[in-house]
Amino acid sequence: MTFKIGLLGLGTVGTGAARILLDPEQRHSLLPELQIQRVGVRSLAKPRQVELPPACFTTDLKAIVTDPEIEIVVEVLGGLEPARSLILAAIAHGKHVVTANKAVIARYGDEIYTAANQAGVYVMLEAAVAGGIPVIQPLKQSLGANRVHTVTGILNGTTNYILSRMQQEGGDFSEILADAQRLGYAEADPTTDIDGLDAADKIAILASLAFGGRIKLSEVYCEGIRQVSAADIAYAEKLGFVIKLLAIAHRAGKSRHSPDQDQLEVRVHPTLVPIAHPLASVNGVYNAILIEGEPLGQVMFFGPGAGAGPTASAVVSDLINIAALLKAGLAAGHSSEEVAVHPLLICAHQHYCAVAPMSELNTRFYVRLRTLDHPGVLGKLGTCFGNYGISLESLVQTGVHNEQAEIVVVTHRVCEGDFHQALDEIRSLDAVDSVPSLLRVLQ
Amino acid sequence: MTFKIGLLGLGTVGTGAARILLDPEQRHSLLPELQIQRVGVRSLAKPRQVELPPACFTTDLKAIVTDPEIEIVVEVLGGLEPARSLILAAIAHGKHVVTANKAVIARYGDEIYTAANQAGVYVMLEAAVAGGIPVIQPLKQSLGANRVHTVTGILNGTTNYILSRMQQEGGDFSEILADAQRLGYAEADPTTDIDGLDAADKIAILASLAFGGRIKLSEVYCEGIRQVSAADIAYAEKLGFVIKLLAIAHRAGKSRHSPDQDQLEVRVHPTLVPIAHPLASVNGVYNAILIEGEPLGQVMFFGPGAGAGPTASAVVSDLINIAALLKAGLAAGHSSEEVAVHPLLICAHQHYCAVAPMSELNTRFYVRLRTLDHPGVLGKLGTCFGNYGISLESLVQTGVHNEQAEIVVVTHRVCEGDFHQALDEIRSLDAVDSVPSLLRVLQ
Repeated sequence: MTFKIGLLGLGTVGTGAARILLDPEQRHSLLPELQIQRVGVRSLAKPRQVELPPACFTTDLKAIVTDPEIEIVVEVLGGLEPARSLILAAIAHGKHVVTANKAVIARYGDEIYTAANQAGVYVMLEAAVAGGIPVIQPLKQSLGANRVHTVTGILNGTTNYILSRMQQEGGDFSEILADAQRLGYAEADPTTDIDGLDAADKIAILASLAFGGRIKLSEVYCEGIRQVSAADIAYAEKLGFVIKLLAIAHRAGKSRHSPDQDQLEVRVHPTLVPIAHPLASVNGVYNAILIEGEPLGQVMFFGPGAGAGPTASAVVSDLINIAALLKAGLAAGHSSEEVAVHPLLICAHQHYCAVAPMSELNTRFYVRLRTLDHPGVLGKLGTCFGNYGISLESLVQTGVHNEQAEIVVVTHRVCEGDFHQALDEIRSLDAVDSVPSLLRVLQ
Repeated sequence: MTFKIGLLGLGTVGTGAARILLDPEQRHSLLPELQIQRVGVRSLAKPRQVELPPACFTTDLKAIVTDPEIEIVVEVLGGLEPARSLILAAIAHGKHVVTANKAVIARYGDEIYTAANQAGVYVMLEAAVAGGIPVIQPLKQSLGANRVHTVTGILNGTTNYILSRMQQEGGDFSEILADAQRLGYAEADPTTDIDGLDAADKIAILASLAFGGRIKLSEVYCEGIRQVSAADIAYAEKLGFVIKLLAIAHRAGKSRHSPDQDQLEVRVHPTLVPIAHPLASVNGVYNAILIEGEPLGQVMFFGPGAGAGPTASAVVSDLINIAALLKAGLAAGHSSEEVAVHPLLICAHQHYCAVAPMSELNTRFYVRLRTLDHPGVLGKLGTCFGNYGISLESLVQTGVHNEQAEIVVVTHRVCEGDFHQALDEIRSLDAVDSVPSLLRVLQ
């Protein structure tokens, strides 16, 4: 059988996918049955790094998603539009969709999966999270026996690269960011990566799969790495931690305010990770996802989170899975057919998960304060924290410069709301000059 | 719908699986449709740690695999017989099979998959390799776009526990083995684990999936950890390595003797692993599998390789997958029906892979020699290795005791056959007393 593919976009990932499809030897035996029929690009004149018949190419992307001969549309354009509209048009025309677009799925997953379920087509997205690491498929097909309680990921290669270099070189954020931009590890406009937005999209997708409900992206707390300083990395190291940008989704139990409602925590922020933790040694552009549940305990998936080859590997895996389903008659080859679908590969849930506000989060904190070098400052801080029921793991005066002392505090688990109240009171103390850093610590 | 299960065995893994099935809340929504119909045990009198109706139990295991009401048989007996015969009988009666039995699959996979393909049933084995870590399903469904060239695993928890403790404590093999037995981490008869046989079964299964051909277990080279000494672990550490029992399957390219034949290397042996390698930090009873291919690069799967909970998680995952296929009409519910099967979940290959003899292996070696403390010994060794074209990475005289010197040599990549010839010549040198250790080094 031959399954005809329409490829939207021939950038890095599209080119990588086309290369695999054109060179199937020693790969899966279904690959030769997948055929690139049309390729939608912005410019026909641009030279391409992969050999495809010139007749394949078109700048009319809409013509691809409506082409009756095409069964599977691969969307590797990136960005929100026209990607979203083209995906919806492809679904409306009965095409299965493979996408690497985390931004579209995290924002419009509800609309897209509702349409896909109505049309009886699959929307596959292994490439959208953690590049070449299989994590979507394992969550859908391999971990269902478990009560998953936590998914913790290093999901953004750019920030992990920058933090790893800051750790290794003792350098400052801005100079290493500039170098990463020069070397191609960070974009000219690095906002999406650096401010945690990319990781937020990805953890929203993983949380949705792990906890079986949709996630409102606006409810995902998101804090980037701009404020992580060389000083904090050095203090963290002394205390036995490394600093990583973690994306965390956690089944938090009942709401503090609505005790009959189960809530999730879904958040992205720089985090102090104990050096012996499996995620602590994930460095450079690598990604890793730790999934914890009962009775499994913990499993971790580690690998390249981006790049043409790894991302294309995930795209083509999805294509092989759809081809297998089409071959077995478990996917309609045309929009007019009605067939059964594979229950583990569709997105069946339609409700939204309740996400707890950050003020209800229970976590540990690392805080660095500048105070006057007066006797009794430590005591005042301790009293202030104590008044809010905040128990401290360590409270260390680390040095004195210009009559100012630097104090680093690590708390036990506290309620985030209580902690901020205590910190507001501490900020107002005469002896306290400023609070340069506030970071969370992995429990 | 309800899918009726016959459970063969209610030991650790069987009890773990039953517990999950009886407590489906917050797990996959298909779980309540899976129902334990019969449980085959050796003794009806034995107290059980899971509540099942007494009428479920039988000592007549054959009656379970022939019961027309049962659609899926879960084999968690372990051992070769009666497991093999019961699996074959279940298949002959049109039942799908979920097994955790690496020994049966590694030895009788050919017979079992041929029968399963004829009967149109699935034989699922996620639990057979690396316990709770999803690796079978990712190999079948997520990595097919790649030309996999190497699978490297820490696949046996007992040996990894012993080697980790030897590393941490500087202790000797036999005393730590005894302690591991006392603590329940090693069996009273530890042969299967310690001598690498368990890991050999598992790498044969992984190689078969990764390279799309069956593997003759007798062609898997297998060397255990009995000869790994505290001295070698200490030397390895000084040289920047840790010693792990690795199971390796590698696409070796053309045969040296039959240049038109592609060959695999499939082997289990203690190995010096560079400390920065992702597998080096996998300690204790944890397992990990590193899969390398093009264009993916490398991905690693890490988690608990054994234990009731993790293994049961894998068993029940397979059950959920079969239930999903039955529900979608992609699996016959009874032996008389003929339906399409899912192409990625059957074992379609029927040829055997060619496995290269160890003499053709190209690898690096670590060798420890005892020599007389004479000037010129190092020179003689160097000349001898040089005569066989063996290039050395390091050659270090590490100490002198009782007029004997200890010399540790690490080679660059050499052909194993050539290396053994050189070593035979070295053993015959007057200045050489003995060769206490010979280990391979990960490239």
